[in-house]
Amino acid sequence: MVERRQPILVSEAVSRVMHYAKHGTKETVSITEASGRYLAEDLIAAHDVPSFDRSPYDGFALRSVDTQEASFDHPVTFEVVGAIGAGYVHEGTVEAMQAVRVMTGAALPKGCDCVVKFELTKEFKENDKDFMTIKKPFAAGENVSFQGEDTKKGTSLAKQGTYINPGIAALLATFGYREVPVAKKPLVGVIATGSELLEVDQPLEPGKIRNSNAYMMMAQIERAGGEVKYFGQLSDDFDACLNAVKGALAKVDVLITTGGVSVGDFDYLPAIYERLGATVLFNKVAMRPGSVTTVAELNGQLLFGLSGNPSACYVGFELFTRPVLQTFLYNKAPHLQNIKALLGEDFEKANPFTRFIRGTLAYDREGHCIVTPSGFNKSNAVASLAETNVLIVIPAKTKDYQRASLVDALLVEAVQGSEWPWDNVVLSYRS
Amino acid sequence: MVERRQPILVSEAVSRVMHYAKHGTKETVSITEASGRYLAEDLIAAHDVPSFDRSPYDGFALRSVDTQEASFDHPVTFEVVGAIGAGYVHEGTVEAMQAVRVMTGAALPKGCDCVVKFELTKEFKENDKDFMTIKKPFAAGENVSFQGEDTKKGTSLAKQGTYINPGIAALLATFGYREVPVAKKPLVGVIATGSELLEVDQPLEPGKIRNSNAYMMMAQIERAGGEVKYFGQLSDDFDACLNAVKGALAKVDVLITTGGVSVGDFDYLPAIYERLGATVLFNKVAMRPGSVTTVAELNGQLLFGLSGNPSACYVGFELFTRPVLQTFLYNKAPHLQNIKALLGEDFEKANPFTRFIRGTLAYDREGHCIVTPSGFNKSNAVASLAETNVLIVIPAKTKDYQRASLVDALLVEAVQGSEWPWDNVVLSYRS
Repeated sequence: MVERRQPILVSEAVSRVMHYAKHGTKETVSITEASGRYLAEDLIAAHDVPSFDRSPYDGFALRSVDTQEASFDHPVTFEVVGAIGAGYVHEGTVEAMQAVRVMTGAALPKGCDCVVKFELTKEFKENDKDFMTIKKPFAAGENVSFQGEDTKKGTSLAKQGTYINPGIAALLATFGYREVPVAKKPLVGVIATGSELLEVDQPLEPGKIRNSNAYMMMAQIERAGGEVKYFGQLSDDFDACLNAVKGALAKVDVLITTGGVSVGDFDYLPAIYERLGATVLFNKVAMRPGSVTTVAELNGQLLFGLSGNPSACYVGFELFTRPVLQTFLYNKAPHLQNIKALLGEDFEKANPFTRFIRGTLAYDREGHCIVTPSGFNKSNAVASLAETNVLIVIPAKTKDYQRASLVDALLVEAVQGSEWPWDNVVLSYRS
Repeated sequence: MVERRQPILVSEAVSRVMHYAKHGTKETVSITEASGRYLAEDLIAAHDVPSFDRSPYDGFALRSVDTQEASFDHPVTFEVVGAIGAGYVHEGTVEAMQAVRVMTGAALPKGCDCVVKFELTKEFKENDKDFMTIKKPFAAGENVSFQGEDTKKGTSLAKQGTYINPGIAALLATFGYREVPVAKKPLVGVIATGSELLEVDQPLEPGKIRNSNAYMMMAQIERAGGEVKYFGQLSDDFDACLNAVKGALAKVDVLITTGGVSVGDFDYLPAIYERLGATVLFNKVAMRPGSVTTVAELNGQLLFGLSGNPSACYVGFELFTRPVLQTFLYNKAPHLQNIKALLGEDFEKANPFTRFIRGTLAYDREGHCIVTPSGFNKSNAVASLAETNVLIVIPAKTKDYQRASLVDALLVEAVQGSEWPWDNVVLSYRS
């Protein structure tokens, strides 16, 4: 067990948590339900795409060698010996001075090596036969989509852990995945603590507030790819709390509690970890908000003790819990996507700890990302969380952050992620 | 009906479609199911936050006037007359030289106007009574979170049409929304056409390809906030097609067909629109890919005739269908978010039409957005769609786009959107 309340660096805290992050299991879902899930296996091209040479246009397929003498003054005439739509195959081989009418996507008839678009031809009928003339030569391969041109059989198209977006859905369909192997969603338990908490449907009472963290957390869990199991709010009774945590642990992959990790008179979580025999990985992190964030481990299972403060809770989840859930989903870049951006306004409050400030990402007309703290930034300001799509990183002990300074920012809404280490962000994660 | 195959500007095409975009209806869902939906009403603060003056720290609440003489050499002693955790209220009024032990979040006891953190006090017991001393004066209001400090009652916190992210979920809980009024999802029908199409579970055959557009489209519809109803693939028989489209129209808010809108021998859609009596808003757009994109309207209901070409289908949906779905969801910025970014590589192919090139968005270390075409960019390249998170806009008839040129880009994965007009993007949408 670490020494109590000794703050550690964010990078060290992330590293300790990630030591216990593990891959989840696989399950199979219908392709119609795969969107938004994560691939459980690499997606390999099972065949060439296209799987045959085909016409990318509506036109006439023919032998380029027969066109070489064609010119404006000396049109060359072909007999049209067939017509095929996409999905059909011309029977037989096309011979000299013959052409086949082909629709976009149709397989190139045997014998042909190029396609001439309709608008460059002139069609006519004679003796009940169809003909067309062209007035210029064509090269072999002209207007042909060749087999394997888009993708060769065996190519790795997407890695295990890839988020299934519409493009991946298209690939899955192309290669015949009616059933898709996806990562099972990690089941994440949520327990709220705090004698001040009312449930969402209770009327306000003096001194009390409604429990907003649990619902915020559920939305964060879903955004991070997890499935929520909400166990409700704990009472003030220690033994009841202990039993609730024990019971919840048996039912979930990861357990999150909000509140109760501080050093106040009613903060039970530290004692609960002790009674459970859990190892506390850390209980103080050199960050604001969320310095009291605590993570413990019991038989390899992670217990996240997030702060009861809404902003601290939000940040603690995104920094520590999200990468664990994304690892469960096989994502090899499980951390929040880390970018550089220009600060949208002066920020001159120095803090001994690294700050993660809720903000919004915008774009200027010169191709820059601009991140701006979202309004009132006291750590209990629920309102400013609503617009948050970025966490702005302000390194510890610095105070010269003017408008347009270059800062690190973490994108909380991106499906892309970043790999460890964030250590490249040298300044930002030192206390 | 517009003149056939007369290309119109993208901006004009969007405008014609949006003329028929309408708001949907409302429904109520549990707050636990609201994440990822869109607010059907403005979210107004129903009370102040905090709803009472409270302590942001663990400490002692007292009257600042009693601290004015305190100094290092002359500590001042207070009697501790109570202790309250968050959620509790101290009975009675705190008098001169009295203090109440308060936990973070607890209501400020009557009579008190400041809070002193524990670490600045020294506690002791005498004659079974609790006391504490301080060595410096405190100001009125020091360490107090005042009622309404975060949000005043009546403040509009989020507009109708706002995407419900974790921050909005927290606000909903704070203000007691056990049930949340959300926009009903638009029901979007999908019909695939094309004699070359196999269903996803059929083995490959010569000349045929599996239907990937429908599955791509379903994922796009879900990403845009819609609900999918897939009607399968149409046969080659005209009357069967006509009846299928008629039947589908009666069941959905919006109907999308893929394929069949070109001028090939088997492209039935134009004739189907005619037989239905639908008004064709346009059937040719000055854009690549997707110039054959057709949109028709029948009694106010929109029929999107997207190209059978995967990239064209993708782009057509994002430019024309997405804003209609987002408008249905009350979003006042329903178009793809439009940003400026630097081009990641040279792009020198001029085209008479505006190009929308699939690409990926990255960030450099100087705060720039960099957009790079995703690999092989032929319009039938399914593979390159997988990585797409941006459409790069290359204006018509230009060819001097070097690496690091400033270009417009449309973010296909952002939950944020842009308002009409994109007309500001003057260059990009002129043909």
